[in-house]
Amino acid sequence: MIDFEFVSPTKIYFGRNKEKDIGRIIKSYGFKKVLLHYGGGSIKTSGLYKKVINSIKSENLAYSELGGVRVNPTRDLVKLGVKLAQKEKVDLILAVGGGSVIDSAKAIAAGYFYDGDPFDFNLHMVKPQKALPIGVILTIAAAGSEVSPSCVISDDLTQIKRGFNCDLLRPLFAVMNPELTYSVNKEQTANGIVDIISHSFERYFSPSTKEELSDKFALSLIRHVVEVGQVAIDEPNNYEARASLMLAGALSHNGLTGLGKKTSFPIHQLSHALSGMKPDIAHGAGLAALIPAWMSYVINEETKKLATFARDVFKLDFYNDLEGANIAIRKLKDFFKSINAPLTLNQLGIIKEDVPRLVNLVTENGTRVVGHSVRPLGKKDIENIFLLCL
Amino acid sequence: MIDFEFVSPTKIYFGRNKEKDIGRIIKSYGFKKVLLHYGGGSIKTSGLYKKVINSIKSENLAYSELGGVRVNPTRDLVKLGVKLAQKEKVDLILAVGGGSVIDSAKAIAAGYFYDGDPFDFNLHMVKPQKALPIGVILTIAAAGSEVSPSCVISDDLTQIKRGFNCDLLRPLFAVMNPELTYSVNKEQTANGIVDIISHSFERYFSPSTKEELSDKFALSLIRHVVEVGQVAIDEPNNYEARASLMLAGALSHNGLTGLGKKTSFPIHQLSHALSGMKPDIAHGAGLAALIPAWMSYVINEETKKLATFARDVFKLDFYNDLEGANIAIRKLKDFFKSINAPLTLNQLGIIKEDVPRLVNLVTENGTRVVGHSVRPLGKKDIENIFLLCL
Repeated sequence: MIDFEFVSPTKIYFGRNKEKDIGRIIKSYGFKKVLLHYGGGSIKTSGLYKKVINSIKSENLAYSELGGVRVNPTRDLVKLGVKLAQKEKVDLILAVGGGSVIDSAKAIAAGYFYDGDPFDFNLHMVKPQKALPIGVILTIAAAGSEVSPSCVISDDLTQIKRGFNCDLLRPLFAVMNPELTYSVNKEQTANGIVDIISHSFERYFSPSTKEELSDKFALSLIRHVVEVGQVAIDEPNNYEARASLMLAGALSHNGLTGLGKKTSFPIHQLSHALSGMKPDIAHGAGLAALIPAWMSYVINEETKKLATFARDVFKLDFYNDLEGANIAIRKLKDFFKSINAPLTLNQLGIIKEDVPRLVNLVTENGTRVVGHSVRPLGKKDIENIFLLCL
Repeated sequence: MIDFEFVSPTKIYFGRNKEKDIGRIIKSYGFKKVLLHYGGGSIKTSGLYKKVINSIKSENLAYSELGGVRVNPTRDLVKLGVKLAQKEKVDLILAVGGGSVIDSAKAIAAGYFYDGDPFDFNLHMVKPQKALPIGVILTIAAAGSEVSPSCVISDDLTQIKRGFNCDLLRPLFAVMNPELTYSVNKEQTANGIVDIISHSFERYFSPSTKEELSDKFALSLIRHVVEVGQVAIDEPNNYEARASLMLAGALSHNGLTGLGKKTSFPIHQLSHALSGMKPDIAHGAGLAALIPAWMSYVINEETKKLATFARDVFKLDFYNDLEGANIAIRKLKDFFKSINAPLTLNQLGIIKEDVPRLVNLVTENGTRVVGHSVRPLGKKDIENIFLLCL
């Protein structure tokens, strides 16, 4: 087990109708003025916006609002948000939405106390020293940002999409009502499922000194998501399936499934380049094509771990580890296919000619290697993995 | 999934030599005056006491100290601790030890702001409204009190040992160096292993609407502890095994393995009566005799869950669930035997004539039923389970 520090302080309010308590919850922490941050307006058509506003008003709390966060949230909106938060002197950012809205809220929360461009945090030029507290009402099970320290922002100008981690940005509380995810369509649900799996997947394949308890948790979580994922796709209003996905989304990315490991997220780096170059490519969609390709690329180095993956996630047995590893890849592809997640990058509009640009985005023009599960991935490795996805 | 609220805010500093940083860690939170709370003096012979004092002094922090916490910590020492903490105006209680020391520290932390006898909390007469922050340097993997909200105190006069839960009492931080547990002897290690298993065991058998992700975590955790437990007994200085136990101890009792369930701890209630009546009976020792007896008593009602337990914890297959349930009981007994945990209450000096008194202690003279996994246990049930342990 590798030394670690770990804290996951987010208070979770989980269950039906919990969002109606948001005013009382905010008040219980003593906050007085909220910046309500949200996306493209689906919370207005669903009626959630009205419920939140009513609850906030009923407790006589003040609020400002900033909507318009898109998938792959942008540097530009973050800067707007910081200015607004400072002008209005809010004491809490309330993110109502999914990972994009929450990440945008995190960037605003850290930017509030920083004189420069908050994107400096994403470029790893400087670390946040202080941040406004963040509350969340979650509307999609996917990114786990409601409990994670990570914050991923995109800059359309440079096509750079980059994340950073800071425990100051772990939300103070997260309201999680699975019913709010009933309206998430099949495609977004599938992308969320892949994203949830990916967070424990990358932790599982991160190195440690031996098999860890967190490895067992990671494989249990992936198995559970495979079990309930199909149900959530087939029956969007199945409470138990939606609840399981929502809880799994949080526990897959709060750090739990990587405790005692030297975690790295190489596949995420590749996926970020995709969304950086084409912002309409959802994170989970890119991951669905990339994960099996990565598995094939490292099969000889990760044979044993892949075999354990097949055994624990899919409850299958086999003659030897190499057979098991191949089964792991095939079964995971089958699962992705069954939920209609994309299996190739072609399906996402990526062609062979895009690969050099993608490689340059991942490696910052060849100046950095990526990740350390198995071994650092250089330019050639990354190119090969992208080519395997086409 | 049953609605829940969950928070586990304790920051964990995990790894070799972390205790040497305790002064710096305390200072990073801004505390100035510490009440050092510990047990019978083993931390002095081991050299830990000196390390802690040196680290505290090196950061120019003030401290008072109160040692003498025994196994099954007492109401009397808690009262002494509260007076001392108030007199010295400390701003942090630092528990250096295991579950008993931490629970005693918790009672002092809550008692600090309460005018009455802190045992009122344990008698469920009143709830803490405020508590001093608590830090921990953990020296034994067992109770999980380093991250849990629970606080169990004994009153020798009435033989009542009772716990209560309060999130205010979750420690602010916990320093966990597995090497500090190398000196824990085989018997205490075995008791700790049983205690760790019991926390996820009771959560697993708590009711929910369907099989939960937390059930998979519970069984994964128990499986891991069974795998590494024997190693820790055989090789006390095996870092990986000790580290796994230490992490499992925390994750087994911070609430994780019961998320979305209506958790109850009936077997713990019975064990508390044992230690209440005979304070030299370690908690884990009582649990080792009680758990298999409880399993036998509920085998017809919990056949399916017991079978899943056998399948997931011991990786065994069988013809039908009843056979699996019996295998679960036999294999768990075998494991307890292999680590020399007591298999009967006779081994702990309990005889048939003690049972009526034990039943009265558990049921408060027949005025309450216990637990709600399977069904509430009444006087007759509890008597039968105790008799099965003899």
